[in-house]
Amino acid sequence: MNRTELIALIKEKQSYLCVGLDTDVEKIPAHLRGYPDAVYRFNKAIVEATAAHCVAYKLNTAFYESQGKAGWEAMEQTVSIIPDTHFTIADAKRGDIGNTSAQYAKTFFEVLPFDAVTVAPYMGEDSLRPFLDYADKWTIVLGLTSNQGSHDFQQLELSAASGGGKLYQQVMQKVARWGNPGNLMFVVGATSPEGLRGIREQYPDHFFLVPGVGAQGGSLEAVSAAGLNKEVGLLVNVSRAIQFASSGEDFAERAREAAKAYHQEMQSLLQSHFSSS
Amino acid sequence: MNRTELIALIKEKQSYLCVGLDTDVEKIPAHLRGYPDAVYRFNKAIVEATAAHCVAYKLNTAFYESQGKAGWEAMEQTVSIIPDTHFTIADAKRGDIGNTSAQYAKTFFEVLPFDAVTVAPYMGEDSLRPFLDYADKWTIVLGLTSNQGSHDFQQLELSAASGGGKLYQQVMQKVARWGNPGNLMFVVGATSPEGLRGIREQYPDHFFLVPGVGAQGGSLEAVSAAGLNKEVGLLVNVSRAIQFASSGEDFAERAREAAKAYHQEMQSLLQSHFSSS
Repeated sequence: MNRTELIALIKEKQSYLCVGLDTDVEKIPAHLRGYPDAVYRFNKAIVEATAAHCVAYKLNTAFYESQGKAGWEAMEQTVSIIPDTHFTIADAKRGDIGNTSAQYAKTFFEVLPFDAVTVAPYMGEDSLRPFLDYADKWTIVLGLTSNQGSHDFQQLELSAASGGGKLYQQVMQKVARWGNPGNLMFVVGATSPEGLRGIREQYPDHFFLVPGVGAQGGSLEAVSAAGLNKEVGLLVNVSRAIQFASSGEDFAERAREAAKAYHQEMQSLLQSHFSSS
Repeated sequence: MNRTELIALIKEKQSYLCVGLDTDVEKIPAHLRGYPDAVYRFNKAIVEATAAHCVAYKLNTAFYESQGKAGWEAMEQTVSIIPDTHFTIADAKRGDIGNTSAQYAKTFFEVLPFDAVTVAPYMGEDSLRPFLDYADKWTIVLGLTSNQGSHDFQQLELSAASGGGKLYQQVMQKVARWGNPGNLMFVVGATSPEGLRGIREQYPDHFFLVPGVGAQGGSLEAVSAAGLNKEVGLLVNVSRAIQFASSGEDFAERAREAAKAYHQEMQSLLQSHFSSS
């Protein structure tokens, strides 16, 4: 899905909600756990329940890999049933030397036909290049993440000789030169709306994937005030607060309600945003 | 395998060679490619041919994931046939928020029973903690990598207020506080022996996993001069130069010869190292 299509989808639906499918087997409702394909069944029900309210799905690969081969199969099956009308993200946070990153790009763009994959920047340009080289696919690079550990390295100040600013700022500055707003997004955590506001000023056109709303404590309103641009420009991810809204037999219905509530809040936030701008 | 066992193994064998199993399907000898389990067959032959000369095997997950479910199965099968006398590394370069990193740790320490996993540091302490918390397992954190892109961020100078030095130096300094030489190693690329020498001065006791010898151009002699310590303290990885020494039916024999040549060079380097120190 290219940039024009993604923007059209978001504007038509008045939603910038990404539903995270971080399917922890131990949190799946008890009545499903007996099935050998419990993860897939659960995901299918969540996708059917939430598709009307979101524009994207994000699968964090960790929750599938920890189930071994069966988990990999569940990931394949899940990607295959997400409708073409939705943007798909492999939240994999990969990154390696060039010939190895090329294998990861093949994994998440060809073997599993995701639209986008998240990538860690520590190894530099040649580790990102194989992802960026795919036409009509997206590379989503970690900028400022939502966790406590984001203070350990991302917030370090660089010397003037190395360009100054914080590490995450220079990461984004360099990475932005290697890609463009049509093939590159950044991960910007919801837990620092001030950080997000500063980043939006620097990057008026890029999409940001924003994790951290819901269980991690980020506020949709604060994130939207700080990050919305003239093309919306945000994909706000919510995982646990939707997926595991209930651990009972009503899990899909409760997930639908949770997704609908986020959707309605987004509709209202977009209305104010576009009427005031 | 704990630190005492690893050191004993290295000293007994007079080898610090790690053989990389980065099994690119397109490079497997033609006569094996027709088998559905070609990757496993190839790996098994390489392990049998090289086990006498190395102390560790490293599987880069990218080459398995790019084969989908079958690749995952090949990784499971390969880990299961590596003898207990060898140290095993999942070169996965993972790293995510805490509850997600816990899933990766489970993947590479339980589902696949590796001794060690490589981890990217960008997301900070809580992204590494779940790996470090495993008893008798090893976390191998990216320090200074062997690729060109290591200059993009790892070599940036930090401001005095942020502690000064280069980013990779501060990464290693902080990470060293979170673990200890019994559960933590660093990745230090072979392509910068001067960098390695400085790092060894700072970290006299830690093991370093050193990629980049062979196809990437690093020199075993230079790496050993810069990095050997009193317990050897290095695992030098060679992938392509051993695995793909030949693309013919003699691939295993040629891999054995290549591994043996590295082993002999290591024996000689260790002899000079310990006689001079």
